[in-house]
Amino acid sequence: MLFRQLFDAETSSYTYLLADEATREAALIDPVLEQVERDLKLLTELGLKLVLVLETHVHADHITSAAVLRERTGATVVASARGAPCVDRKVGHGDVVRVGGLEVKVLETPGHTDDSLSFLCEGRLFTGDALLIRATGRTDFQNGDAGQLYDSITRHLFSLPDDTVVYPGHDYAGHALSTIGEERNHNPRLAGKTRDAFIAFMKDRKLPPPKKLDVAVPANRACGRVAEPRAHS
Amino acid sequence: MLFRQLFDAETSSYTYLLADEATREAALIDPVLEQVERDLKLLTELGLKLVLVLETHVHADHITSAAVLRERTGATVVASARGAPCVDRKVGHGDVVRVGGLEVKVLETPGHTDDSLSFLCEGRLFTGDALLIRATGRTDFQNGDAGQLYDSITRHLFSLPDDTVVYPGHDYAGHALSTIGEERNHNPRLAGKTRDAFIAFMKDRKLPPPKKLDVAVPANRACGRVAEPRAHS
Repeated sequence: MLFRQLFDAETSSYTYLLADEATREAALIDPVLEQVERDLKLLTELGLKLVLVLETHVHADHITSAAVLRERTGATVVASARGAPCVDRKVGHGDVVRVGGLEVKVLETPGHTDDSLSFLCEGRLFTGDALLIRATGRTDFQNGDAGQLYDSITRHLFSLPDDTVVYPGHDYAGHALSTIGEERNHNPRLAGKTRDAFIAFMKDRKLPPPKKLDVAVPANRACGRVAEPRAHS
Repeated sequence: MLFRQLFDAETSSYTYLLADEATREAALIDPVLEQVERDLKLLTELGLKLVLVLETHVHADHITSAAVLRERTGATVVASARGAPCVDRKVGHGDVVRVGGLEVKVLETPGHTDDSLSFLCEGRLFTGDALLIRATGRTDFQNGDAGQLYDSITRHLFSLPDDTVVYPGHDYAGHALSTIGEERNHNPRLAGKTRDAFIAFMKDRKLPPPKKLDVAVPANRACGRVAEPRAHS
């Protein structure tokens, strides 16, 4: 398996590239619009054919390049049935998506948003904004729900083996990865914390809305295809 | 081998953590002063004992946490004999440094600075600011020399196996890693370029000096121990 972690510094967003080294088929998880040329160039240099774009959720802090990648490569866009209408293939809990010989298992992990998915592939877990490193996604918009997020993480993610590698959708402290064992033991919002304590902690946070919320959510519901200004005639 | 890549967003600097999973002994490569608490916390959470701090060179763009780490953990600071006087153990081409059962091989790769080292450990190559991803370090200060950098990269690094993973000291485009094969084929400054063409390219670049040059170089020659202001009496 060929694997790359890519970073968008403006929004501290991670994008992941997975590929079958034999068939050269590739998937991108959570690609960022501003990085589309970088990502297409890397695919070309590595001799890969993009077949899938996987979205963990409808993002509120950056715009996806899914629609542009679909147009330029023919890739299929995969995301939750509860999220963006523009998606080609809607998936839910337990579904398996194939990238060449690689199997990507879909886990529904709602709570940050109601459409949040995590993806598991060969011991690597891509958690989007559900489980972050020593943190979690926020739960105060897009039908977020702190109790639901606690359940998603503790039931579906913390039940995975300790050495499962956690690759989040963002990190703001310079960490690139973690493991399920580490997060179960050291995530300050979750380790030794009850569901009620987690809900109370999330409720007490007073955060401004994401800067790009009003632009990013409608754009991402169209897979990042930003609408042309409409003529007034 | 336990391995982590860490990032300092302000200076786009990478720090690397290597550890022997059996003995729990660890090394940090190029740690950044502003991130010292993050790094010490991670070592504690992972149950690791820091025994070595490895510096690829005297940095001009950030201050190392080597002296602070040495004081707080007892770690030995390792770097080139041509660089900072504060170093505990001075190494040169072909030396091997041990971290528990791990062997780290030292390669002298001058040209960005005259003291630049690369470190090779179990197929991972830490190149500091000699070879960057699709780029190289600059060569216009600290006794930099473009011809020497070309020789360092093409003779000592490009002679390594194609699948050697390249972990640079910085990246400004959101790439986390590359490989020797990729850089030999796709690095625009080196692929198919002669030594003279590389020297001409580097000479033509007109870059402002690094913002922290005047502060960082003297501080890093003292392993990041910033001098206290002297009393005027």
